[in-house]
Amino acid sequence: MSDPDPRGLSINLATLRGQCDLLQAVEQCLAQGITAIAPWRDQIAKVGLPAAARAVRENGLRVTGLCRGGMFPAADAAGRRAAIEDNLLALEEAAELGADCLVLVVGGLPEGSRDIAGARAMVADGIATLLEPARKAGMPLAIEPLHPMYAADRACINTLDQALDLCEALDRDGLDLGVAVDAYHVWWDPNLEGALRRAGKRILAHHICDWLVPTRDLLLDRGMMGDGVIDLAGLRRSVEAAGFHGPQEVEIFSAENWWKRPPEEVVATCLERWRLHCQA
Amino acid sequence: MSDPDPRGLSINLATLRGQCDLLQAVEQCLAQGITAIAPWRDQIAKVGLPAAARAVRENGLRVTGLCRGGMFPAADAAGRRAAIEDNLLALEEAAELGADCLVLVVGGLPEGSRDIAGARAMVADGIATLLEPARKAGMPLAIEPLHPMYAADRACINTLDQALDLCEALDRDGLDLGVAVDAYHVWWDPNLEGALRRAGKRILAHHICDWLVPTRDLLLDRGMMGDGVIDLAGLRRSVEAAGFHGPQEVEIFSAENWWKRPPEEVVATCLERWRLHCQA
Repeated sequence: MSDPDPRGLSINLATLRGQCDLLQAVEQCLAQGITAIAPWRDQIAKVGLPAAARAVRENGLRVTGLCRGGMFPAADAAGRRAAIEDNLLALEEAAELGADCLVLVVGGLPEGSRDIAGARAMVADGIATLLEPARKAGMPLAIEPLHPMYAADRACINTLDQALDLCEALDRDGLDLGVAVDAYHVWWDPNLEGALRRAGKRILAHHICDWLVPTRDLLLDRGMMGDGVIDLAGLRRSVEAAGFHGPQEVEIFSAENWWKRPPEEVVATCLERWRLHCQA
Repeated sequence: MSDPDPRGLSINLATLRGQCDLLQAVEQCLAQGITAIAPWRDQIAKVGLPAAARAVRENGLRVTGLCRGGMFPAADAAGRRAAIEDNLLALEEAAELGADCLVLVVGGLPEGSRDIAGARAMVADGIATLLEPARKAGMPLAIEPLHPMYAADRACINTLDQALDLCEALDRDGLDLGVAVDAYHVWWDPNLEGALRRAGKRILAHHICDWLVPTRDLLLDRGMMGDGVIDLAGLRRSVEAAGFHGPQEVEIFSAENWWKRPPEEVVATCLERWRLHCQA
């Protein structure tokens, strides 16, 4: 069997956050045949949106997602309006880059709150408000359910089913609102298989990395594919069976390991491990 | 309103793991009017089962649970048999102490495995094997669903609904197999309310502590009630509405904070915070 085509892999630029700016990261990817990326907004801001968009266009890159919109809950109405305003800017950036979707990390509890049901209602309101502008921009919104360990401070949408409930409530036809399936966040879910089947065409992105044992930090100790316990090949089979065949996007937050290594080594390792561990 | 009776509070002795052996912990509890405890097996082993049982009987203590049985998955059949043998010993200890239940932390992936469905099947097999001896001993088994961040290394049962699926599959009448509802593990669950209603009489224990923001360690940075984001009063209302009215058991793993404080301060704080934050 020939090696899987590197165009099937996307590099989420958080993976190179420790080493590269956006333009340098693009060079690192292209040097190894990788033609898809997913940048973060702060990385775009650092080089400027025009330069980022030019790098995408001139190199024919696929942008598998813009990270990130979301963060809807806030303690007061002004805070929630400010979040919507910021999401509208994110939509513009995503459109300018021609991204496949705007990824939504929906936000957790407002400061001082213990009302997670209330936070979830704010998320639903925020997405409902954003949906029409997203339709006008032709930019699908991808809710990324985050691992329950982030429920308080990053995202109170914590399972695929919960995200799909929102999708079905807000966007009956399923063309404008979907989900980003990140292995790290969903691998433990006892209903993962059922939820993926249910998701079907709503799967807009598929992120990969690995769950390390032990995990030394809740946010910044994610593993390279193959170094942990997630059955990534099995997950890919299920995601493909559900109907998603886009590039798999590797996204690794790793303050003490991968962010400290040379970028060419990180990209080469992503490609090698993806070929070894992530083929259906 | 008068202060809530301290007999409504149980101290899981993991909360005093840094400071006390079992007998010293019992003294600390009694000195503040607390008459319910939940010991760990290593704490019992350290003072000897006869001494532990004598302390329980002579002081009329309620044992709200023995921690812990479980840990069923293993890489080979010999390992799984050894786990069952150890669980049979745990049942004997629980019976000797007159515990309300034997708490099951079911175990995660066997070494080197990425097959979480397989691990879950081993858990089901293990509980099925243990159920008849538990019935003979008159000792209910309480499956404790653990937070999904422990799915790999501690427990692959990660939601109340998943635990209840097992209960209903293995013990149709619901007298011998139930669940331990720990606020820390379940607070994020989007179906928490529904799952508690479904659990009903299967709720055998209710553990409390708090989720800190930020959480600095996956295992040993649990918070004192009131220091985090869990709506503990709301959870108690739901647990009581489901039919459980036993003592609430405070269980705090806190290597860098509470385990370093004087035990009388920790017990007093548990009581004070329970009165403030955990009343329905």
